[in-house]
Amino acid sequence: MTIENISSNKCFGGWHKQYQHQSRVLNCAMRFAIYLPPQASEQKVPVLYWLSGLTCTDENFMQKAGAMRIAAELGVAIVAPDTSPRGGEVADDAAYDLGQGAGFYLNATQAPWQAHYQMYDYVRDELPELIENHFPVTESRSLAGHSMGGHGALTIGLKHPDLYRSVSAFSPIVNPINCPWGQKAFTQYLGKNRDAWLAYDACELMKQASCDLPIFIDQGSSDNFLEEQLRPEALIAVAKEKEYPLILRLQEGYDHSYFFIATFIEDHLRFHASHLV
Amino acid sequence: MTIENISSNKCFGGWHKQYQHQSRVLNCAMRFAIYLPPQASEQKVPVLYWLSGLTCTDENFMQKAGAMRIAAELGVAIVAPDTSPRGGEVADDAAYDLGQGAGFYLNATQAPWQAHYQMYDYVRDELPELIENHFPVTESRSLAGHSMGGHGALTIGLKHPDLYRSVSAFSPIVNPINCPWGQKAFTQYLGKNRDAWLAYDACELMKQASCDLPIFIDQGSSDNFLEEQLRPEALIAVAKEKEYPLILRLQEGYDHSYFFIATFIEDHLRFHASHLV
Repeated sequence: MTIENISSNKCFGGWHKQYQHQSRVLNCAMRFAIYLPPQASEQKVPVLYWLSGLTCTDENFMQKAGAMRIAAELGVAIVAPDTSPRGGEVADDAAYDLGQGAGFYLNATQAPWQAHYQMYDYVRDELPELIENHFPVTESRSLAGHSMGGHGALTIGLKHPDLYRSVSAFSPIVNPINCPWGQKAFTQYLGKNRDAWLAYDACELMKQASCDLPIFIDQGSSDNFLEEQLRPEALIAVAKEKEYPLILRLQEGYDHSYFFIATFIEDHLRFHASHLV
Repeated sequence: MTIENISSNKCFGGWHKQYQHQSRVLNCAMRFAIYLPPQASEQKVPVLYWLSGLTCTDENFMQKAGAMRIAAELGVAIVAPDTSPRGGEVADDAAYDLGQGAGFYLNATQAPWQAHYQMYDYVRDELPELIENHFPVTESRSLAGHSMGGHGALTIGLKHPDLYRSVSAFSPIVNPINCPWGQKAFTQYLGKNRDAWLAYDACELMKQASCDLPIFIDQGSSDNFLEEQLRPEALIAVAKEKEYPLILRLQEGYDHSYFFIATFIEDHLRFHASHLV
């Protein structure tokens, strides 16, 4: 497993770096960004994995969220992968919510997607292995994401509480089997049999969860996608029924953008740091 | 003077908004962004004008600098104009450092540029008039910028200490008459007579300044443009000779990017706030 450095920028006393590598799981070249806080020059640090939303790359969160200031204070590394396999040989679609930039953090089983769209295994296995082999990090991991990436963080976290100390999300798709984004993507990537969809639905997974992995969610009340796509009340209902330790805040007047994420990312990083120690 | 709202995003309890208006000075439609801190809903607040660098629009600083967090705490509005006139009827050049995205905050006198490229007057007169007519702001103004925008902030500030309380810059072009970026742009916009260039050169203006407008500059030591384009030592020499109150910090290992700006923007905002009160 070799990685190629693409960029390095000093930031808040640490380093923001981008790398490219050949992914064996996705069968294509992939890019990721890592922020190494100043503490990483002297000791191993824990890692927060950030999963971005539709249309994003490894860059959006690192450039727009203002997270590195707090990561530098707390001594936490941040890793941001791309949101799908990429490249001329990778299946794609003209729509923004399918194909490249829209991997939905699942393992596709249907043609033409299954050859590359294995983001679930990439995020869960290959990426942490790569990071832990190449950078001064511990095996303490947390997981966070936005929108489609919030869906990724919740589903991967709920299925693997052994691998993560905490999960958080902004504006996550909590019930993809019951919203247009999820139904479209799952039909394409997983086929029409809805039984196969249940393994990638945060509400369904929380119903079956026997873990108490801490979960923290922020949702804007003025998010354009709130009622049709995001529906946090579905997850709240499951959490109540299960007495699951979910913290979900409805933030008055905030929308789906990185302006919302930037406003509250500090709370998320402090939440993760309290579990990563 | 009418303005049209293009976007509104709640951020750190205040609002980030973009507007479009027909500029009488630039003779084209212009866009700007404004951040109104939460305090602006109850009282008038002072304004920091931010001038961006080559290739930027009104968006780069607002999305990448992490400034709104501190502006919200300090009760300072931020206004970010575009970096040049724009549009199909506006003269342009294929190079990134001339034409649209590269207005250099001056009043062009040469064809084909002079019909629209009057960014100096736009920033000094039309924009503050517009802002003060339409938003809950005081007439306390400060000025800051990056690279070409640092040049803009320094030159406009040094010529109009009556209009601004303080000036700051990241990686400014302090001596454009003696660097390739400046020489290329000034030849095109102002003609070959170097006498006309002196009015837009921070070193020359500081030599003649009779003001003590506070100036604060951060410069990265690993900036790719440091030796050929930026040459802060030229301004330091003038400040020493004149005993001008210049604070210039060389930041070890930092480059020309917004990762550098994000790291130190808090210091700049606190500097301005101390003068804007």
